[in-house]
Amino acid sequence: MKAKREALVSLFTAMREGKVDEDIIDLLLFINSIDGIYTTSSCSGRIGIMEEPDLGAKPLARWLIKVHRPMEFEEAREALRNAERGLIFLKSQPPIFHIVAEDLEKAKKLHELGLASGFKYTTFKVISKRYLVEINATEYLTAPLGRDGRVLIDDEYLRFALEVGNSMLRRSKGRLPRLERNFRKLREELGEDGLFYELAEKFEIKAR
Amino acid sequence: MKAKREALVSLFTAMREGKVDEDIIDLLLFINSIDGIYTTSSCSGRIGIMEEPDLGAKPLARWLIKVHRPMEFEEAREALRNAERGLIFLKSQPPIFHIVAEDLEKAKKLHELGLASGFKYTTFKVISKRYLVEINATEYLTAPLGRDGRVLIDDEYLRFALEVGNSMLRRSKGRLPRLERNFRKLREELGEDGLFYELAEKFEIKAR
Repeated sequence: MKAKREALVSLFTAMREGKVDEDIIDLLLFINSIDGIYTTSSCSGRIGIMEEPDLGAKPLARWLIKVHRPMEFEEAREALRNAERGLIFLKSQPPIFHIVAEDLEKAKKLHELGLASGFKYTTFKVISKRYLVEINATEYLTAPLGRDGRVLIDDEYLRFALEVGNSMLRRSKGRLPRLERNFRKLREELGEDGLFYELAEKFEIKAR
Repeated sequence: MKAKREALVSLFTAMREGKVDEDIIDLLLFINSIDGIYTTSSCSGRIGIMEEPDLGAKPLARWLIKVHRPMEFEEAREALRNAERGLIFLKSQPPIFHIVAEDLEKAKKLHELGLASGFKYTTFKVISKRYLVEINATEYLTAPLGRDGRVLIDDEYLRFALEVGNSMLRRSKGRLPRLERNFRKLREELGEDGLFYELAEKFEIKAR
């Protein structure tokens, strides 16, 4: 798979540059060591405060803060001071994995694996003959906090909203060990990929 | 398709009982008149205030108010008075269509149609040899408002959050005419389904 080679080179390069979420590096490496599948953009789950210049203007949105663990009250308050323009949202988002499968059979297996691991929004798409599975969960929080630098909530509400967002994040991240166990079983079934180990060695990546 | 017959009977029965969102009845009928595809649970997009006894305890959640058009401030305030127990959320959700296709080719066409109509979260799943396409958009708002009957926001914030939620709803519903035009083209390509018209006549449903 030429596409897998390219995907692995991107992943290993991003790892070197410290651009991959630390807490899912091992899992990403493990998934990529499986024959016939590979990951593209993935996230270990995060909570943050985002400013969007206008509704739906995602490309122009900017994070005032974004962390891959529960966020503390002081961090959030501090970040809100930097709000300037547009809608301010508190966002909590579960882990998400994009995995390409080389055929429909493997895509179906990945789909079942995601659902069986508690990721209820697992779906797939066919894009120009590639099967792209998205392993995704339901714990999404999108709470507006204010507009154009003006925060419309008080400290009590901020504490409360953070508590809700952090709980959702913990809950969704809590499924990662189960997901990993299920990928271990899948590797036993599908086998390991020589290409992965060859490239990992070249990039001096320690894989399990 | 035996499954389509059953799905149509459910739809027509639900229509008789007034249980189908008024503003997408015509579109649902149109989609079902196309050969080889049929709809299951669908929603025209809504905004509401929900009480969830505990995070993730969806089955026990109850709507304090739910409407398929923008919600007014007074309605929201009134509904909040009935909050009793658990987390209170303001939720805005875009239109969502679940469509079963009889084969992978048709599922791919539906997937492309959804994306081309601006529904960026369109995906599909294979469930026991049936292809289920979900036409879905990105405009989701889930804002916590309080807990256990206690509302932690003031009127100014409520007005603001409603404005954001209503804008998202208008924006996502605004794509329905484009979606309908694309289904018109699809019907020209795939043809009409005799079964649909036969059952529609039996149930005295006026289809276009």
